[in-house]
Amino acid sequence: MKSEHFIGCGSGYRESSTVIFGAPFDGTASYRPGARFAPAAVRGESYSIESYSPYQGKDLADEKIFDAGDLELCFGNTERALGQIEAFAGKILSDGKIFAMIGGEHLVTLGAVRAAAAKYPELCLVHFDAHADMRDDYMGEKLSHATVMRRCHEVLGEGRIFQFGIRSGERGEFEFSERHQFIEKFGFSGLESAMAGIADRPVYFTLDLDVLDPADFPGTGTPEAGGARFGELLEAVFEVSKSNVVGFDMTELSPPLDPSGRSVCLACKLLREILLKKGR
Amino acid sequence: MKSEHFIGCGSGYRESSTVIFGAPFDGTASYRPGARFAPAAVRGESYSIESYSPYQGKDLADEKIFDAGDLELCFGNTERALGQIEAFAGKILSDGKIFAMIGGEHLVTLGAVRAAAAKYPELCLVHFDAHADMRDDYMGEKLSHATVMRRCHEVLGEGRIFQFGIRSGERGEFEFSERHQFIEKFGFSGLESAMAGIADRPVYFTLDLDVLDPADFPGTGTPEAGGARFGELLEAVFEVSKSNVVGFDMTELSPPLDPSGRSVCLACKLLREILLKKGR
Amino acid sequence: MKSEHFIGCGSGYRESSTVIFGAPFDGTASYRPGARFAPAAVRGESYSIESYSPYQGKDLADEKIFDAGDLELCFGNTERALGQIEAFAGKILSDGKIFAMIGGEHLVTLGAVRAAAAKYPELCLVHFDAHADMRDDYMGEKLSHATVMRRCHEVLGEGRIFQFGIRSGERGEFEFSERHQFIEKFGFSGLESAMAGIADRPVYFTLDLDVLDPADFPGTGTPEAGGARFGELLEAVFEVSKSNVVGFDMTELSPPLDPSGRSVCLACKLLREILLKKGR
Amino acid sequence: MKSEHFIGCGSGYRESSTVIFGAPFDGTASYRPGARFAPAAVRGESYSIESYSPYQGKDLADEKIFDAGDLELCFGNTERALGQIEAFAGKILSDGKIFAMIGGEHLVTLGAVRAAAAKYPELCLVHFDAHADMRDDYMGEKLSHATVMRRCHEVLGEGRIFQFGIRSGERGEFEFSERHQFIEKFGFSGLESAMAGIADRPVYFTLDLDVLDPADFPGTGTPEAGGARFGELLEAVFEVSKSNVVGFDMTELSPPLDPSGRSVCLACKLLREILLKKGR
Amino acid sequence: MKSEHFIGCGSGYRESSTVIFGAPFDGTASYRPGARFAPAAVRGESYSIESYSPYQGKDLADEKIFDAGDLELCFGNTERALGQIEAFAGKILSDGKIFAMIGGEHLVTLGAVRAAAAKYPELCLVHFDAHADMRDDYMGEKLSHATVMRRCHEVLGEGRIFQFGIRSGERGEFEFSERHQFIEKFGFSGLESAMAGIADRPVYFTLDLDVLDPADFPGTGTPEAGGARFGELLEAVFEVSKSNVVGFDMTELSPPLDPSGRSVCLACKLLREILLKKGR
Amino acid sequence: MKSEHFIGCGSGYRESSTVIFGAPFDGTASYRPGARFAPAAVRGESYSIESYSPYQGKDLADEKIFDAGDLELCFGNTERALGQIEAFAGKILSDGKIFAMIGGEHLVTLGAVRAAAAKYPELCLVHFDAHADMRDDYMGEKLSHATVMRRCHEVLGEGRIFQFGIRSGERGEFEFSERHQFIEKFGFSGLESAMAGIADRPVYFTLDLDVLDPADFPGTGTPEAGGARFGELLEAVFEVSKSNVVGFDMTELSPPLDPSGRSVCLACKLLREILLKKGR
Repeated sequence: MKSEHFIGCGSGYRESSTVIFGAPFDGTASYRPGARFAPAAVRGESYSIESYSPYQGKDLADEKIFDAGDLELCFGNTERALGQIEAFAGKILSDGKIFAMIGGEHLVTLGAVRAAAAKYPELCLVHFDAHADMRDDYMGEKLSHATVMRRCHEVLGEGRIFQFGIRSGERGEFEFSERHQFIEKFGFSGLESAMAGIADRPVYFTLDLDVLDPADFPGTGTPEAGGARFGELLEAVFEVSKSNVVGFDMTELSPPLDPSGRSVCLACKLLREILLKKGR
Repeated sequence: MKSEHFIGCGSGYRESSTVIFGAPFDGTASYRPGARFAPAAVRGESYSIESYSPYQGKDLADEKIFDAGDLELCFGNTERALGQIEAFAGKILSDGKIFAMIGGEHLVTLGAVRAAAAKYPELCLVHFDAHADMRDDYMGEKLSHATVMRRCHEVLGEGRIFQFGIRSGERGEFEFSERHQFIEKFGFSGLESAMAGIADRPVYFTLDLDVLDPADFPGTGTPEAGGARFGELLEAVFEVSKSNVVGFDMTELSPPLDPSGRSVCLACKLLREILLKKGR
Repeated sequence: MKSEHFIGCGSGYRESSTVIFGAPFDGTASYRPGARFAPAAVRGESYSIESYSPYQGKDLADEKIFDAGDLELCFGNTERALGQIEAFAGKILSDGKIFAMIGGEHLVTLGAVRAAAAKYPELCLVHFDAHADMRDDYMGEKLSHATVMRRCHEVLGEGRIFQFGIRSGERGEFEFSERHQFIEKFGFSGLESAMAGIADRPVYFTLDLDVLDPADFPGTGTPEAGGARFGELLEAVFEVSKSNVVGFDMTELSPPLDPSGRSVCLACKLLREILLKKGR
Repeated sequence: MKSEHFIGCGSGYRESSTVIFGAPFDGTASYRPGARFAPAAVRGESYSIESYSPYQGKDLADEKIFDAGDLELCFGNTERALGQIEAFAGKILSDGKIFAMIGGEHLVTLGAVRAAAAKYPELCLVHFDAHADMRDDYMGEKLSHATVMRRCHEVLGEGRIFQFGIRSGERGEFEFSERHQFIEKFGFSGLESAMAGIADRPVYFTLDLDVLDPADFPGTGTPEAGGARFGELLEAVFEVSKSNVVGFDMTELSPPLDPSGRSVCLACKLLREILLKKGR
Repeated sequence: MKSEHFIGCGSGYRESSTVIFGAPFDGTASYRPGARFAPAAVRGESYSIESYSPYQGKDLADEKIFDAGDLELCFGNTERALGQIEAFAGKILSDGKIFAMIGGEHLVTLGAVRAAAAKYPELCLVHFDAHADMRDDYMGEKLSHATVMRRCHEVLGEGRIFQFGIRSGERGEFEFSERHQFIEKFGFSGLESAMAGIADRPVYFTLDLDVLDPADFPGTGTPEAGGARFGELLEAVFEVSKSNVVGFDMTELSPPLDPSGRSVCLACKLLREILLKKGR
Repeated sequence: MKSEHFIGCGSGYRESSTVIFGAPFDGTASYRPGARFAPAAVRGESYSIESYSPYQGKDLADEKIFDAGDLELCFGNTERALGQIEAFAGKILSDGKIFAMIGGEHLVTLGAVRAAAAKYPELCLVHFDAHADMRDDYMGEKLSHATVMRRCHEVLGEGRIFQFGIRSGERGEFEFSERHQFIEKFGFSGLESAMAGIADRPVYFTLDLDVLDPADFPGTGTPEAGGARFGELLEAVFEVSKSNVVGFDMTELSPPLDPSGRSVCLACKLLREILLKKGR
């Protein structure tokens, strides 16, 4: 009988140092929804990849990771869904573990960041994305995929967010980021020095998968030409993984938009690599 | 240059007795979203049908109908979106016109029913649907596509809702409807006598298109086998159209789920027939 | 090694009494093209059906039918493409055979009707379709899928066209047909008496597959709800097949619009039944 | 956290009288594979239906059913896969329970029938299908979706198979069935008397979902026009359910062929109705 | 209410220096049609991008651009459709404005080039494409997507066409281009010097989007591996934009071929960048 | 009338030095089948490319190549299907010709390698792939797409397989390859020296198309991010083509997974380039 966890993540909760969970919410997606299907797709397709990484020479089968399944989130009441995420992530952190959350739209990050900031007041946020997500509101609404980093800024304060790969946004979003924190347009060139500056502080790493070029990752709701190739992103992810990551998420995978299934496969592979690094 | 109204609906607001508008909202859809794309699809594909109806021998070109385009609705804040719909529908009614709203998920009906009930205290609601939509809450949330008729019941009171075609729901939903109002499971057999009972009272007619059999209408998020054939629905719609309809909506068309496009075509054709009857 | 003819149609030209050929043209399709792919799809999928018909108790393997493959038709010059069809159909008829043409859009019928009318001045045209196709011009153009029956009327003259299943058209198209020939709206109820009136005269049978209900046949460019079920059509086809059919076509199958492939399968099955009747 | 059983089937093995399991195998499908994805799709989509049946007034939540998940079947070695199915089904029967197997292609039935015939020598097989599946071999191979009923005939002997809805096959397959057992072409008209003849003998009920009309069920690899409507099938299923059913399967659902998802939804609904009857 | 122009292009005709219009024609597409849907798709999806360009630091909201909607072009009569395009483009040029045409198949370029050459006898044509499009005829037809550059050569004369990115064609097409004008196979390496040679002469810039690699741009009818990446094309487009461009088109986007929607998004983004440069 | 061979490969068997044939088998594909459709798709789409290569300045029309069509392979009996391939490939080789086989899943290679090794005892195998395919068994089965190279190793012996581009596999597969033969992870960097080492020995070249990056080639069942770009692969293919290639295959193209059709187009183009080199 086939079990239903992400490949190689069949350990129990107690013994595990890392907990995976899904946050299948895309209720504020104004354009092409579908990210709600991502956690199930990632889990289901993980059986088509190997647990062994030829990049790192390591194997998920040697790690202790628990897959908690998906949260059942409420649609139509955004604040309640964020509260559910915050509570679950907070529980994991308070048990001395770290987590990897599979979104969902990018707004789910806010719930998890609230939990991580409560536990780690020094928290820094490393943000890979095509979009700045720095609007103050979106069509009058404060809680939206397009405002999530602005809300995180309010939680974390000045100079704590480090954005990379941003290639879309209103003029004001770029100006806000330049004034209040670190932003690298288009790529990852300042990443190494940024990570050096963060040093040992706890890091929340949020990976909006549309930072990738749509050629590599078509399965996302708002594809933006001119993004990172898989190889570049992998290098950047390895760079972030060297730091003290206490929480991680990957968001904005929308399986229905990619009939070839390769976007899901890529996300699985990336998650494997991140979990292997995290397990160190 | 191609104009952007529904076929044959190019009259101005002032001269028109009927106003069409779109309510592209599906923010509480928990399963397969996509109804947000319906109004644009209906308008765009209306050019593939004729304005003349061989069923009725009438032509939309002879009517006075204004197409107001789509409301820009907020995702992530359900109550605000409903308020926008209520305000717009209320304006049309207060100008002495009737409206035809193209959803969107079924929850949009609540906004329009609030407006109609405010204007017409005697309002009756005729409801065609596969699903009872009579839950008190859905995963703890009061505003949802699965609770919309319960909310309408609160607005309208006892005995004012007439449900037809219902073939899915929890046991409690069927029991509630049987106690508090009229429900006909599976089909339309009691329709003629129900309409006779309504007589001249003002009617809001809400048509959840999934009342149709998925064979005829695959483009919907929660298809339920065993529904009405197009011909049966057309007859039933003509029956309702004889009454004093002051507001109408069609909901739950989800164009991305039907690559053949025939669900959109069917919705266009049905809208033409309803508008022709309404124009009488 | 797999051969490339329609199933059971592997006889040589000389020995055959019936010739199949494809006319993969959809150059005037204004809405959703794709009928150009129909002949290849029908031939390729014919291997998923049986050559034996349980409806008739007969087998294509016992008939003499030659599959001539597809014409290479010119796009962008409609009159030239029609000329190619007329020439090829004319050659078959002059060799004392009958033909079955797989369209393509409905305009291809005009080329074949010209050839048949030249050979058989008494020719009658039996026309199954959702659309009247009786416009005099379409956006100023005389040669179009929407005008093809009007052009055929010019070739054949008064009272020679018998239309069935028509459920879409402008008011004027219905009026024209009622004045100049036979038209049965929505279904086939007058078919038996119409065929009795035709008696032994040579018949061209043009079957626009969108006469079928889109529930049975979603793979077509302008689906019209409210059409014939497969069983009804099969009965009607058997009725026409009793007459002196000298030419046949099936048009408006658009394989890309039906990812399930069932529209192609249905067309294959229908073609098998028609060929078995024809072989009598 | 969301559990992964079919809706309402969360009981434990020991307490349950019925066991569901998946057999995701389609290794002999010569045409359009995809049935391997059916069990996962049925389980995943069951959350979009209700556990309550308005047809029967019963609720799956009141039954004791265990969902065992999917067998991990070997591709490329057909006999081994059938052996795995036979072993698992045999275990369930020897524990005094009945089973409901979700295929997979139709060949999976052979493994389960072997197990049931070993336990119940008087076993009768009720077979709903579009295709006779009575070939002796298919391209030289004895084990194939096209030969499965012939192999079952060898297991069960003369007069034990009752076929309904068959509308495709070679001439010889129909002749074989007419000589050796019961066959009803096209529909279910002889079903009631056939079930009366079976009386109390144990019944294996195999439901190839392509017995349905492709209008109702497009998600299958070899769609055959002219099949049963959902309502007809439901009546027929209720008729069979009155008998002493000891094993059941539904096969040939191919989710990738139906982008609307309605074929999966229909299969879920049918499974609910069958399980409710079985639970009696 | 949502308006229906390309994002940021809501100015009136009179005040605008640039006019956008759509030419939804693909009547000579011999292979996979669909470019007729491009203008509607580009306009509809433009709301998912920002009007602000982080590449240029400029905003469409600051420009004066009028979106004229789509021409209603005749299918089945190619010369007439080209005449409609020529007339409309000629009107814009005679009013002292420049235009940006959204195709449609590549043949639409011929109509617009005729208009531009009539107004500017010194016109040069810069041509980005995967295909040479230099055939004298295609299956006997002079007007085709495969002959369009040959026809433009006849309009413009020797040495006036500059081709880049060409990686497919018959031997004779490459030889013709080498003899009569400038051709750069595979990429853009000679672009800067070519533009220097053109200097201040008026330029018509025709961008067949299949010059892009199919990895970046899958939504096109004849994808050719080995093309330009988005970043390379953007640089090349900026280079051309420095010149005196009087007319521009982008062609061969076929939205139905890319279910992810990213090809449309890329086209929107590219159009924004070109319009911003043009607005200078 | 359109013929049905790959473009430019219309020569007769006797006069040809190269024979193309299809092996449409994917019976052991455990994940996403579809490679069975590849040969038909490649042949059908070859008409959208040119027979002339601007890369090599050569034309298929000048070569002598026979297209033998597709083998009819048995599903459900893997060993028999491999035997059919071995026999056909053996016949071609014994007639002094070379062959190009279009798969099918990668297991088809085993049949052809057996034939080639029987004819050429010195045979070397050059293997481009994302996956090592070096398992000893897969779920207990010796014959599988995941074990094919291990089986080839048994046929050929030590040091005769040269693997490139491998980026997925179990730890043990990498270790086996490193011990027993040549393996280059991720790319082609050791190719030139490997080919120099092979020198004049006969070469079987097996190209699993998933060695390409999924950005370039989404139409495959197990896409692996981080692969070769088309240009890199083309260079590597040219490098291999300089050697004494006696048999070639391309496998794992799965057309249904790529709705844009570009994966098929790429495979056609690659086949053209390989055949032109081979024709030398």
